[in-house]
Amino acid sequence: MKFEKHVFVCTNQRKEGERKSCGEECGMELVKTFKKILKEKGLKNSIRAQRAGCLDACEYGPSVVVYPDGIYYGGVQPGDINEIVEEHLISNRPVKRLIIDFSGSSATSE
Amino acid sequence: MKFEKHVFVCTNQRKEGERKSCGEECGMELVKTFKKILKEKGLKNSIRAQRAGCLDACEYGPSVVVYPDGIYYGGVQPGDINEIVEEHLISNRPVKRLIIDFSGSSATSE
Repeated sequence: MKFEKHVFVCTNQRKEGERKSCGEECGMELVKTFKKILKEKGLKNSIRAQRAGCLDACEYGPSVVVYPDGIYYGGVQPGDINEIVEEHLISNRPVKRLIIDFSGSSATSE
Repeated sequence: MKFEKHVFVCTNQRKEGERKSCGEECGMELVKTFKKILKEKGLKNSIRAQRAGCLDACEYGPSVVVYPDGIYYGGVQPGDINEIVEEHLISNRPVKRLIIDFSGSSATSE
């Protein structure tokens, strides 16, 4: 495993007039905040956060997925990132209040 | 786990004159080929392939990472995708000849 944790942040942007996309909201700001915090904590060689296209969780966005755990977070705001880093990425305690519950959903794809 | 396998393909494009990037080579073609094959095989609800930013494996590109396994593939060409799908994504036998060996490397970041 190249990274202990690898975080993908949806920064997908749809054309104006189409339904809401994560990138329009704050996708790139989330990526920048993750990168800044990981660098400050000296973790950037073991934990990576980066941008990604549509994660197929549009209706829960802004969305983020953490691998290898496969845990999806929804409605993520820049103010949530420090908690995700401290609790989940470092201490392996996923942040329950942000976890997307896909049961019964029919998530739509890009 | 929303997807049994989740494939991220680097489609990062650097500005002209900077060092080579995966996206310039064939990143988007790889994404399209993955999606086409997964759809044809009726796997698109259980296995997802999508675009991503820089995967921090630039010198091995075009690069792809498969989660939850955390296996990186390098030098991937459209003609390799069917083998990755059949062998790794469906049958859990990673395609050894394409796996990136990071031991001793100092991969550079975006």
